[in-house]
Amino acid sequence: MSYNKRSFELGSKRSVIREIFEYSKARKAEIGNDKVFDFSLGNPSVKPPEEVKEAIVSILNESDPTVVHGYTSAQGDARVRKAVSDNIAARFGVKMSPDLIYMTCGAAASLSICLKALLDKDDEVIVFAPFFTEYSVFITNADGKVVVSMPESKTFQVDVADFESRISPRTKAVIINSPNNPSGVVYTKDTVEKVCEALRRKSCEYKKDIYLIADEPYRELVYGDVEVPYIMNYYKNSLVCYSYSKSLSLPGERIGYIAVNPEADCAQEIYLAVCGAGRSLGYVCAPSLFQRVAARCVNTKVNIAPYKENRDILYGNLTDFGFECVKPDGAFYLFVKSPDVSATAFYEKAKKYELLVVPCDDFGIEGYVRIAYCVDKSAIVGSLPYFKALAQDYGL
Amino acid sequence: MSYNKRSFELGSKRSVIREIFEYSKARKAEIGNDKVFDFSLGNPSVKPPEEVKEAIVSILNESDPTVVHGYTSAQGDARVRKAVSDNIAARFGVKMSPDLIYMTCGAAASLSICLKALLDKDDEVIVFAPFFTEYSVFITNADGKVVVSMPESKTFQVDVADFESRISPRTKAVIINSPNNPSGVVYTKDTVEKVCEALRRKSCEYKKDIYLIADEPYRELVYGDVEVPYIMNYYKNSLVCYSYSKSLSLPGERIGYIAVNPEADCAQEIYLAVCGAGRSLGYVCAPSLFQRVAARCVNTKVNIAPYKENRDILYGNLTDFGFECVKPDGAFYLFVKSPDVSATAFYEKAKKYELLVVPCDDFGIEGYVRIAYCVDKSAIVGSLPYFKALAQDYGL
Repeated sequence: MSYNKRSFELGSKRSVIREIFEYSKARKAEIGNDKVFDFSLGNPSVKPPEEVKEAIVSILNESDPTVVHGYTSAQGDARVRKAVSDNIAARFGVKMSPDLIYMTCGAAASLSICLKALLDKDDEVIVFAPFFTEYSVFITNADGKVVVSMPESKTFQVDVADFESRISPRTKAVIINSPNNPSGVVYTKDTVEKVCEALRRKSCEYKKDIYLIADEPYRELVYGDVEVPYIMNYYKNSLVCYSYSKSLSLPGERIGYIAVNPEADCAQEIYLAVCGAGRSLGYVCAPSLFQRVAARCVNTKVNIAPYKENRDILYGNLTDFGFECVKPDGAFYLFVKSPDVSATAFYEKAKKYELLVVPCDDFGIEGYVRIAYCVDKSAIVGSLPYFKALAQDYGL
Repeated sequence: MSYNKRSFELGSKRSVIREIFEYSKARKAEIGNDKVFDFSLGNPSVKPPEEVKEAIVSILNESDPTVVHGYTSAQGDARVRKAVSDNIAARFGVKMSPDLIYMTCGAAASLSICLKALLDKDDEVIVFAPFFTEYSVFITNADGKVVVSMPESKTFQVDVADFESRISPRTKAVIINSPNNPSGVVYTKDTVEKVCEALRRKSCEYKKDIYLIADEPYRELVYGDVEVPYIMNYYKNSLVCYSYSKSLSLPGERIGYIAVNPEADCAQEIYLAVCGAGRSLGYVCAPSLFQRVAARCVNTKVNIAPYKENRDILYGNLTDFGFECVKPDGAFYLFVKSPDVSATAFYEKAKKYELLVVPCDDFGIEGYVRIAYCVDKSAIVGSLPYFKALAQDYGL
């Protein structure tokens, strides 16, 4: 074989979500768009706020296009980074500096860069199940090893004893994703405090820094008065990966940032390692127009009411029908326990009822499916009789 | 050290261009913008064509924003890839398929992905001096080794004998960049044919595929009736990395593509390796609005007349003053031989005349500076008396 084997395998191994996508397209063509209930994709269904279009148009009309579309500095435009760091300071009370902000091409880029900045060969990275499947890909790309910590089975909060037992002298970093994809769970203040205490104990015991990386694309998607603890206020050796994908409904525009905690040991050096990792991976100068859009819309958020309404209808009905799932406080996912022998068997049977859900065995925990409720309300309502029939089929 | 050492070094080693940038800013504040002649940056000075803004506004007005700003498939929107492959077919007579096109976040991303797709540990990649400094960074990131082939000293075309002697059983790929940064040279048909013949001979001798990667951000910036040979028509195991940075003056928007030659052995497998490498590095779904802009503007080009005029004035005068340089047929760089003991000494002396040029020792060849003439004509004209004085200072 003349090309790189691992790259080939990663490219040729079709993800289950991709397969469902293809099936969905074909099935919709066959029986009609409104007859297939596709809950497989985490693509925001709520329109971007009007401010986004206004920002684009006003930037295009007011500014020199060679500047707007020109290179910014590698770490991002200075004024954009200032807007971001001011926003972090105002919202979370962290003394953030623009010189600890690295603008990136979205959440995947942010994580890739952080891992490349921190990891040495064979370093371990702990992830909390269930977790976004691509974490393994990015960790492996940075020559690291994935270590999975299993959750408390009822609440899907971190099982702190399990977590602490996974920390080893080779642990370099921990990724925490809250609100969580795929469970929709928000880790509580209590959970975060206990995770951070365990990390401090083990850092001390092993006499080494362990980094906590918060992956936060869903931060703004929380329902009710639930609070998402800001990691920097709980643990000094931390980095935050943020993306505007969901907060502004701009997933395709690939715009986000990495923020290094100013209280971290050697914060400036870590930031330089982030800059170097970005350079090494080819990520310098995040898309320039959308850097500026993000800066203008730094306090803007999508209307999350439609997601909340979908959650309430779906969670209420599905549990009434007898399905088991934890009530999600955030993101736009419902994580449902398979009443069948396996998640795949459940997925296959749901398909017969024109319900497309994602079996989650690749998310680090077996026997669950993910239902992405970022769809039109009519699809939620339309799907209910089918979910009911499916429940009856299982004798729930 | 708790972070990754190589990433830290890459981030903390300030590039000479970055240093000049900072000096330039400070010096301009001191003596005035029009008194400092900064030729250090390859940032297009010609405005993007009107069609770009028209395309953005019309896409925003006509389309559903959740689609425009939504995820495309990992390899790029199907219609965008179709527009790109049709364009390649029409311009170069290659039977291109949309399923061999991978939309990327610009030229750096394209190269990173190609190298990650092809290289195994310690594979060698040959680059032709002078070459863009970041090639070394990307090759090292893909676990490869950089092998430099030195050019013919008068023309800066490839020294084919030197090149052939560098091909070893470990050679996996060759990067060719035409028009060249920093020399401005376009490799002739004769050069390309000889390079490809040497590659075929050695592929045969070593019984292995060697890939030719064409890095083509400057393809559309050629002056007069100079032709840039299209690599796919000369060598089957080839990939083209294209960027709209310079052809549409959109360097900050990070939009480009990788095209795999349909005639390559195992073209589809190579493409899958490209997809996997993109996934592995976090590059899936290039920025969605600008994917669509690129598709609409696939036949649009910036007005290159200002660059040509700058080249003619600068080349004509500098050679008249006694400086030695090859006449650039493309890009927007002039590669001038240092009349001093070193490129750095020349750079330092030029600075005293308020002329900021880039010493190119990091570009794989010693004793030259790069002058980026992508600036306003007034800066070119204004700089001439200073270049003249500098020449006289050297007794040219």
